Amino acid sequence: MTVWAPSGLGEVRPGDDLAALVGDLLAGGAPGDALAEGDVVVVTSKVVSKAEGRVVAAADREQAITDETVRVVATRERPGQPPLRIVENRLGLVMAAAGVDASNTPDGTVLLLPLDPDVSARALRATLRARFGLTRLGVVVTDTAGRAWRDGLVDVAIGAAGIVVVEDLRGGVDAHGRPLTVTVTAVADEVASASELVRGKSAGRPVAVVRGLARYVGDDDGPGARSLVRASADDLFREGSAEAYQGGYRDGFGEGFREGSGNEPVPVD
Amino acid sequence: MTVWAPSGLGEVRPGDDLAALVGDLLAGGAPGDALAEGDVVVVTSKVVSKAEGRVVAAADREQAITDETVRVVATRERPGQPPLRIVENRLGLVMAAAGVDASNTPDGTVLLLPLDPDVSARALRATLRARFGLTRLGVVVTDTAGRAWRDGLVDVAIGAAGIVVVEDLRGGVDAHGRPLTVTVTAVADEVASASELVRGKSAGRPVAVVRGLARYVGDDDGPGARSLVRASADDLFREGSAEAYQGGYRDGFGEGFREGSGNEPVPVD
Repeated sequence: MTVWAPSGLGEVRPGDDLAALVGDLLAGGAPGDALAEGDVVVVTSKVVSKAEGRVVAAADREQAITDETVRVVATRERPGQPPLRIVENRLGLVMAAAGVDASNTPDGTVLLLPLDPDVSARALRATLRARFGLTRLGVVVTDTAGRAWRDGLVDVAIGAAGIVVVEDLRGGVDAHGRPLTVTVTAVADEVASASELVRGKSAGRPVAVVRGLARYVGDDDGPGARSLVRASADDLFREGSAEAYQGGYRDGFGEGFREGSGNEPVPVD
Repeated sequence: MTVWAPSGLGEVRPGDDLAALVGDLLAGGAPGDALAEGDVVVVTSKVVSKAEGRVVAAADREQAITDETVRVVATRERPGQPPLRIVENRLGLVMAAAGVDASNTPDGTVLLLPLDPDVSARALRATLRARFGLTRLGVVVTDTAGRAWRDGLVDVAIGAAGIVVVEDLRGGVDAHGRPLTVTVTAVADEVASASELVRGKSAGRPVAVVRGLARYVGDDDGPGARSLVRASADDLFREGSAEAYQGGYRDGFGEGFREGSGNEPVPVD
């Protein structure tokens, strides 16, 4: 597998034709770098958002976060700063600050995530396939996300087209003939992480190409990265521990008070 | 960045000299594949555990999980199967089944994680450096882990030596001169994920080489992957939502009952 990030994209502005810019960038490299069948083009959500005009004036970044929030997952006070808010955003993604980004944008503005990064990935894929005459091409749109339990951030896939997003090996067997029961690999997230290693954060190289994963690249757009989002109902960590404790305490207090006062316990709404 | 996974390691058995086996594997490839300054060698914890004799007889896998558990984080009943247990294990890692692995091991046995994967990485690094006459060489030991909020598994670093584990860009500035405040990249985890893409799960290729990340590779062993583990006290998701809710309910009920019965509220122990 080879992963590289060409430099020279330049600043992306609202209304820019990102597919044309990325195509120019990828057409301008060394001959061996020309896009080939089975390649995956990885693009940060930041440039997708910029091209799509998701830069909004925001004197108040906190309001922008509130506007993008569907559900608060956890909050934590921070001395001298607004509280840290980990929330589920419109895309189903659980992220600090709802994925609202205030770095690498002009002062007084913040960057919202693309409206639908899977749609953005499909559009980018369609244009690049046509331009380079390719059938099998993958596109991944990335963003940077924190994790429960581990320090540091990694890039994950928030949009995808033409690439296997999750490889499900259940039903297969291991070298001892035993069933592989728990092996469902988040391929698109691993691709996003691999691309981050060559892009870097401040180097102005928001596009990467991954070559050597043709077995994951198909003819059709596929399910998209939205399919990587775990449904809240299936999520054992849908609320922060403190928030869940507080909810339990409130409900328990109400029920205990009724019982202590000799009243029949009644359902708590 | 180039990532490849040579085949031909063969089955690793307790007592095998893993560093010799990996060295033989890496010495036997094409001339261009010989290890070079700045390379990172990535090895799955599975083969490290096997070489270190962490294969234990286990008629009862559930007991092995219990033995490896330091703290239960979340559990969920599963019809027809033992409950899913997400726990913190001896290494501080929050993982399903404590990282105890029953695939790719002989029947009647399970595989425990290495006792100290950072120590394993340092030992492997020392031997490979000496054998190949290299100064700057990184070693990462990987395992596969689930995530809160996202489906599918990715490989993460549970051991590391000679490589920057976390790149802290705080203090730097973006292209607009604004401070990069939240950019702490879990480099070692991204390396682990990248390597998984070329290793595959059932292909018998537990070793990968990553070339092109020399800027992350240093002369000394460095802090190790243990430094990626978030301390429980700093973790907003130290308990599953249901477990935290139940704890809150129990405490709240006790307090509410006392107040309802006209007793002074007393601290709940």
